Amino acid sequence: MINQDTIVALATPSGAGAIAIIRISGKQAIGIAEKQFQSVSGKQLSKQATHTIHLGHIMDGDRTIDQVLLSIFKNPNSYTGEDVVEISCHGSNYIQQEIIQLFLRQGCRMATAGEFTLRAFLNGKLDLSQAEAVADLISSDNEAAHQIAMQQMRGGFSSEIAKLREELLNFASLIELELDFAEEDVEFADRKQFKDLIERISIVLKRLIDSFAVGNVIKEGIPVAIVGEPNVGKSTLLNALLNEDRAIVSEIAGTTRDTIEDEISIGGIGFRFIDTAGIRETEDVVESIGIKKTFEKIDQAQVVIYLFDAHDFNDKSSVLKVELEKIKNKYPQKPLLVIANKIDKVDDVLIAKIQSEIPEIKLLSAKSGFGIEQLTNSLLELINTGSLRNNETIITNSRHYDALLKAFQEIQKVKYGLETGLSGDFLAIDIRQALYHFGEITGEITNDDLLGNIFANFCIGK
Amino acid sequence: MINQDTIVALATPSGAGAIAIIRISGKQAIGIAEKQFQSVSGKQLSKQATHTIHLGHIMDGDRTIDQVLLSIFKNPNSYTGEDVVEISCHGSNYIQQEIIQLFLRQGCRMATAGEFTLRAFLNGKLDLSQAEAVADLISSDNEAAHQIAMQQMRGGFSSEIAKLREELLNFASLIELELDFAEEDVEFADRKQFKDLIERISIVLKRLIDSFAVGNVIKEGIPVAIVGEPNVGKSTLLNALLNEDRAIVSEIAGTTRDTIEDEISIGGIGFRFIDTAGIRETEDVVESIGIKKTFEKIDQAQVVIYLFDAHDFNDKSSVLKVELEKIKNKYPQKPLLVIANKIDKVDDVLIAKIQSEIPEIKLLSAKSGFGIEQLTNSLLELINTGSLRNNETIITNSRHYDALLKAFQEIQKVKYGLETGLSGDFLAIDIRQALYHFGEITGEITNDDLLGNIFANFCIGK
Repeated sequence: MINQDTIVALATPSGAGAIAIIRISGKQAIGIAEKQFQSVSGKQLSKQATHTIHLGHIMDGDRTIDQVLLSIFKNPNSYTGEDVVEISCHGSNYIQQEIIQLFLRQGCRMATAGEFTLRAFLNGKLDLSQAEAVADLISSDNEAAHQIAMQQMRGGFSSEIAKLREELLNFASLIELELDFAEEDVEFADRKQFKDLIERISIVLKRLIDSFAVGNVIKEGIPVAIVGEPNVGKSTLLNALLNEDRAIVSEIAGTTRDTIEDEISIGGIGFRFIDTAGIRETEDVVESIGIKKTFEKIDQAQVVIYLFDAHDFNDKSSVLKVELEKIKNKYPQKPLLVIANKIDKVDDVLIAKIQSEIPEIKLLSAKSGFGIEQLTNSLLELINTGSLRNNETIITNSRHYDALLKAFQEIQKVKYGLETGLSGDFLAIDIRQALYHFGEITGEITNDDLLGNIFANFCIGK
Repeated sequence: MINQDTIVALATPSGAGAIAIIRISGKQAIGIAEKQFQSVSGKQLSKQATHTIHLGHIMDGDRTIDQVLLSIFKNPNSYTGEDVVEISCHGSNYIQQEIIQLFLRQGCRMATAGEFTLRAFLNGKLDLSQAEAVADLISSDNEAAHQIAMQQMRGGFSSEIAKLREELLNFASLIELELDFAEEDVEFADRKQFKDLIERISIVLKRLIDSFAVGNVIKEGIPVAIVGEPNVGKSTLLNALLNEDRAIVSEIAGTTRDTIEDEISIGGIGFRFIDTAGIRETEDVVESIGIKKTFEKIDQAQVVIYLFDAHDFNDKSSVLKVELEKIKNKYPQKPLLVIANKIDKVDDVLIAKIQSEIPEIKLLSAKSGFGIEQLTNSLLELINTGSLRNNETIITNSRHYDALLKAFQEIQKVKYGLETGLSGDFLAIDIRQALYHFGEITGEITNDDLLGNIFANFCIGK
């Protein structure tokens, strides 16, 4: 399983920038780099200390490819746990490619997605959940997702699992020991303490499993559908929320033909706002597709914002109420925020009328920004961020969720076995199963397919 | 002029990648970084040696923003010549922004475009033409452009100019010394040697000025217009040349409505291929715009490839000959490659007929790739790469070109003055002018506007 190749990849985003980093890892990393590197100081690379930086030129024979800074990390004190060289070169695509091609010709192999982190895992620098957190950390785009990934990468989650696993393993050993002395009918494992442990594990697992609901939305962002008739200002609201001109905003009814999605961070939580074509009967074919998508988007959304034009309230109040009823009946569990937009254009009498007829109404002027803050506060109130605020461990990874769920089921079997006085050998089997699922999370139990799946989702160079 | 601020910027391309580099430069760089960095080893950052790398966490109070590698460069041994800190963090946009925002709050200022390189220039780490070469190096996307930028960055061009400048300065001093002894009618400056020097400078300047013609096309890429009737396979040829599906290729005549440009490197030289709508009379409005663009593109191109469908030759040979005549008459100086495409679809009799009627014809099957190599060879032959092969200094920068041209004019005046026995004081003025223009190139003579213009073209972070 441990790979003997020396691998190379671009570690910074592709495209031209001021600088780019090319990373090499493996037994030959320093040896190969040394041959292609002409140090300005004339020092021999392989004799330099770990964690030092050297100015020089990457040479292909007589040809200078670039002036670079070369960093050395000697095993085991590197990201992968192997010898690592990082080359900081000028950020042109041409130079990046020339250097990578040069190292490929010198015997390096192109790294596969996530292979640097895979090696870090295989060399014991990270456990599996920490390795997964690296990918989460890179894709995190709001404070909450970042905080959870950082906590997981620093081992908060693994250490909690590892502690429970150790305690359980301890009891498993005692119970298996009893089996060796079966004829003597001894009890090494204190059943009272064991029951307490099983109870404690159940509570922790339950909490972790429950945290996935909030963890998942935090990781993926909370989908919010913005719906309403054409031309009520959905795109303007979206723009006010996004603070940018992503959606096309115009005065022609039905401008937003397709759904447009964008994510913003409110109070550290990512919300994915989905702007859709208006809900109404229409003969326009393109528009019809848009309306079909509106309902599809409400299906996908966790929160629905229904927007109407306050100015049209007198003409449309009955239609409006019917539509709101329709949505409430179809999606009774889904939080629905009803918003009267364009209130800058109406008088106080009409506002009072709207408020009396639709008590839950929120007032907004997407154009001027009035009511935007109240709306974002309402959105935040819908999300239970208690566990986030309390710095509790939150599960965001569906693989962990599955393993925890399976471990929980096994623990329930153990609990039932203890209550019904199941014999030690059967208890031991269930405990081993639970331990297996704990081990899956941190990577004590693993296989090539699983590792392949996990690291394929990484970017190349990580 | 020297800036006291500590500046910060992202040095790697924006977007998510495995890692990102944030660069800080200035007097406070290490001090500010130290406050926000919690070293894993517990060592104090400011006491560490230059060119060393440290593992730790970037902290905002109690909150961990990221686990990072932090590199220290102490003045004057850094890119800018100041204290520099480079932070290698996980490559999420969120983390990049959080770290940059943190350092801005701690008293850093956002770097302007090219400000790191500007500081390198102001601190004497690079001369001005070397600094300009850094930007050229980053934007170089083929071997020739890269080679010229690399040579310039390593000072090949500057040292040639500096040497001439020094010799000239020497004579200027002698001639100015003569002025102090004007009444005694002495000649400190040997007129014969001086004439030789002026001759030598003229030759070098002439060669450098002439090299701009090839330097400029190498830097910008050589524009090649691919023209012809609709549906003759222009986009297929472009794709065969580009080896990618950039242009839309279909069987409907007139598919390519707009011009499409892409650059490829052939034999180390960048060619910008311009695909255009076919040249023909049409009533389709969109198509007409395309045809107008065709002639515009021929205007801009240095080479024209005229493509026709071999299969249609019998029907269209007379129209074809008229069109070729038209192009030759309109652009007599522009190399024109006439190519019969789709020859896989025609028999040898027709091929012989085409070859006899259009002797300069080249045969091609863009679809199968037949003739592509011959075409690329023909393109290369059109470019005079002699000076490139001989490793001579080539001017690619129009600012340098202007300064060299002005210096050349002044040198011609000096030469004329010497021949006509102009008095020393007038000679001295012309020499000083020539020296001024030499100084402009390397940056001995400069001003804020000039620097502003040069560095504004850099990316931020460089």
